[in-house]
Amino acid sequence: MAKLKNDTLIRALLRQPTEYTPVWLMRQAGRYLPEYNQTRSRAGSFLGLCKNPGYATEVTLQPLARFELDAAILFSDILTVPDAMGLGLYFAEGEGPKFERPLRDEWAIRDLAVPDPGAELRYVLDAVSEIRRALGGSVPLIGFAGSPYTLACYMVEGGASDDFRTVKTMLYARPDLLHRILEVTAQSVTHYLNAQIEAGAQAVMIFDTWGGNLSHAAYREFSLAYMQRIIAGLKREHAGARIPAVVFTKGCGNWLEDIAAIGCDAVGLDWSVDIAQARARIGSRVALQGNLDPAVLFAPPEVVQREAEKILAAFGHGSGHVFNLGHGISQFTPAEAVKNLVDCVHRSSLRYHGGSADSRAS
Amino acid sequence: MAKLKNDTLIRALLRQPTEYTPVWLMRQAGRYLPEYNQTRSRAGSFLGLCKNPGYATEVTLQPLARFELDAAILFSDILTVPDAMGLGLYFAEGEGPKFERPLRDEWAIRDLAVPDPGAELRYVLDAVSEIRRALGGSVPLIGFAGSPYTLACYMVEGGASDDFRTVKTMLYARPDLLHRILEVTAQSVTHYLNAQIEAGAQAVMIFDTWGGNLSHAAYREFSLAYMQRIIAGLKREHAGARIPAVVFTKGCGNWLEDIAAIGCDAVGLDWSVDIAQARARIGSRVALQGNLDPAVLFAPPEVVQREAEKILAAFGHGSGHVFNLGHGISQFTPAEAVKNLVDCVHRSSLRYHGGSADSRAS
Repeated sequence: MAKLKNDTLIRALLRQPTEYTPVWLMRQAGRYLPEYNQTRSRAGSFLGLCKNPGYATEVTLQPLARFELDAAILFSDILTVPDAMGLGLYFAEGEGPKFERPLRDEWAIRDLAVPDPGAELRYVLDAVSEIRRALGGSVPLIGFAGSPYTLACYMVEGGASDDFRTVKTMLYARPDLLHRILEVTAQSVTHYLNAQIEAGAQAVMIFDTWGGNLSHAAYREFSLAYMQRIIAGLKREHAGARIPAVVFTKGCGNWLEDIAAIGCDAVGLDWSVDIAQARARIGSRVALQGNLDPAVLFAPPEVVQREAEKILAAFGHGSGHVFNLGHGISQFTPAEAVKNLVDCVHRSSLRYHGGSADSRAS
Repeated sequence: MAKLKNDTLIRALLRQPTEYTPVWLMRQAGRYLPEYNQTRSRAGSFLGLCKNPGYATEVTLQPLARFELDAAILFSDILTVPDAMGLGLYFAEGEGPKFERPLRDEWAIRDLAVPDPGAELRYVLDAVSEIRRALGGSVPLIGFAGSPYTLACYMVEGGASDDFRTVKTMLYARPDLLHRILEVTAQSVTHYLNAQIEAGAQAVMIFDTWGGNLSHAAYREFSLAYMQRIIAGLKREHAGARIPAVVFTKGCGNWLEDIAAIGCDAVGLDWSVDIAQARARIGSRVALQGNLDPAVLFAPPEVVQREAEKILAAFGHGSGHVFNLGHGISQFTPAEAVKNLVDCVHRSSLRYHGGSADSRAS
């Protein structure tokens, strides 16, 4: 594998000095890019994109061709794991993800087994390898997975939900069943992320989209505890390089100290958190990733710059900040706004670091 | 008006000693009660219920006939205010609230005017008076309104939204327009709540359902600042009684200190907050209302009791706690679970207060 030319992201995640603040965007390969929609239409469907390593590589690289992003992130979906567990993932038009066989039955839950990523998720690992080759060491590749609780939400509800009534009824009425699902899913995610690391992922991120819908105590027991197990089971070094791990819970503000204590290198922040306060609370232990409101990208260029600069200033001097949105980029975002944002972060962050613009390797 | 026989709620909201922890539930008059569905079907529609003081009184009282609740809350909808401003509220079957004339156009925004609650919202004030008469002083009646930002979300989007893209685009691209909407709406809500107080509401609550979707700084500027103006403009005493004001923002955890500082008597907590931590942070300044996960009510009786007792214990000894859910009760809740919860709160909270079961006046 080629040596990494721009390792700014890795250094920032490990709170080592960098010349500027690195930036990437959650869901940076996506529907706001016309070239993505073209590839998707050739692939026939979203799942067709995910399951074909050639297409997955193509769309992963698309935003990097347009913007000076400091990382690529594997194009995939968090629900590939429950799909590999046999739940039958499909996408109903205009309705989001669904499972043919949601987990409601006690026997199905008892029978749930950890998939072999090298078999059932081979297509993802192939995509990781192919993307690494295609990147040629330009920027690092981030691998990812969903948190066990977030996956369980979809697995038990059978799709997206407004109120998570089914999974929460299980949580309160039959916590043993939910713990069983979470246990198997945590093992599955651990194996899966380790397989991504072996295939070439240079950092990994756990997306806990729904953990914030839990009560304060239930979050720790049903979401955080299982992310902690995953982190404890990850290969943290591969091919001589340290592999940073990022944990992102939407609605994280109530649990920042708890999240920072599970052994991750960095904590992803949604936009409701003040990053200055977050740094004061946990910045001595972990790096912070975030946290621009994705809706800022609908505003004129000067507003995008002003809001980005506010976040850079709020984090302040020194390393340990990876600029990102507080959630995935909207499909309605104008691509020029992304270019403006990325360039602004690179330019405006120089003053918070030791180096100058010329030292940027990207 | 009859003297209040059970004023436990009022005392708890004012952090005065009580014999037990009072309890009421957000959306306690609602679809989980068969008698509510019968009245609604007679009324023909949800708006038909809201706009007819007789029906509104009937459904407001229904949960009090079943459960030993310590308060009644006016049956109405937060969107009656924008409806009175001329936006044309309607409910499309299975789609939630909609406006015929959403606020998108600069001239419409400039023309927005404060409605006269005595005229356009007369039906609400009549309901308040009729409910007060019907209650006969048994428990206090809570009046309410939506927060300006939450109302603006619906007014600009034209209905519910997944991403609040339109209102947030306005916030970042044309903050002057959004401030104009919020200004007029804050004045409207102030007049409206004062009219409810004059008609007989004995406590008032502001529901900020969507404030938590804002960035940390934007919440203060676009949601909290306008709730502060409302609180500053409220009649805090009427007919010789103090009228407590409660502020509830869903996703409040990031801003508890800020909310507690706007002059309200109590802060409503969603279930993601640890009420023990919330008391440590702001309990010396305000009472706390909350914060059971509504999904707990789907669990067996012993779980409902255990989870309710956890919250009582977390708040601990002394006054200043009003037990409630962390959000509105689900339409799928079994009514027996509510009875179990209310009885449990009354019984189990005695140990945290000075008195005994016999001193309960309800």
